[in-house]
Amino acid sequence: MSHSENQQINPIFPKGQPVPAEYFTGEAWLTPLVPLDSVFNTVIGNVVFAPGARNNWHTHPGGQILIVTDGLGYYQEVVKPIQLLKKGDVITIPPAIKHWHGASPDSAFTHIAISTNAQTGVVDWLEPVTDEEYNSFDSPFNS
Amino acid sequence: MSHSENQQINPIFPKGQPVPAEYFTGEAWLTPLVPLDSVFNTVIGNVVFAPGARNNWHTHPGGQILIVTDGLGYYQEVVKPIQLLKKGDVITIPPAIKHWHGASPDSAFTHIAISTNAQTGVVDWLEPVTDEEYNSFDSPFNS
Repeated sequence: MSHSENQQINPIFPKGQPVPAEYFTGEAWLTPLVPLDSVFNTVIGNVVFAPGARNNWHTHPGGQILIVTDGLGYYQEVVKPIQLLKKGDVITIPPAIKHWHGASPDSAFTHIAISTNAQTGVVDWLEPVTDEEYNSFDSPFNS
Repeated sequence: MSHSENQQINPIFPKGQPVPAEYFTGEAWLTPLVPLDSVFNTVIGNVVFAPGARNNWHTHPGGQILIVTDGLGYYQEVVKPIQLLKKGDVITIPPAIKHWHGASPDSAFTHIAISTNAQTGVVDWLEPVTDEEYNSFDSPFNS
């Protein structure tokens, strides 16, 4: 499937601003939607990843929920295989679980990221995802 | 603007199951996305409203965040005017604030509803929104 076939014509949010390069490999963009406060204890942002882009390994002290709105992406928890994500998928990431997420190699990818229990912290960044790790996806179409 | 012009060709989520009639006026459908638990303390669902449909007045003990993904809708807090909502709008509803939301008269409407601090409760339902209240929207195009 080509990159363009996976892209919404009218995305819900604008592409946003480039993310901090030190926590990502490749190009990605963030639109902040809800900031940290003590009323909702919830931080929400929309993230767009270019094909092949992904964030570093990281953890969320209070957990995170991802809602996939466009494209095809990857999600991986440490010592587990990469999971393919598509529009409409919802991923719940428990507190303190080391993981990463991003686009698949041939498609951009968009998700809404909801950091829960944010009064306990939002994110702790770790090392980059290596190319070997990123390329370990075992597609059912490869066999 | 016609109803059909506001509808996504490929919605993110299926239409879902009919909502409980006692808390809504008109037709609406719910797709539960994240259930109540003690890990995330966050309940998420996708709601589709037919044109003219709305929920009853209600409050959320822990607050709620709405992310509009399609169509044109209404949001009103008690003693304030109705606010028009469109795709990409994000509404933060503080705990205990009496309010309602739903579609505008001529367009369906879809939002993701995120109930925050759900360990304190998810929703307390109140009386229906009357036709007089629903029809009080003061459109800038009416003047």
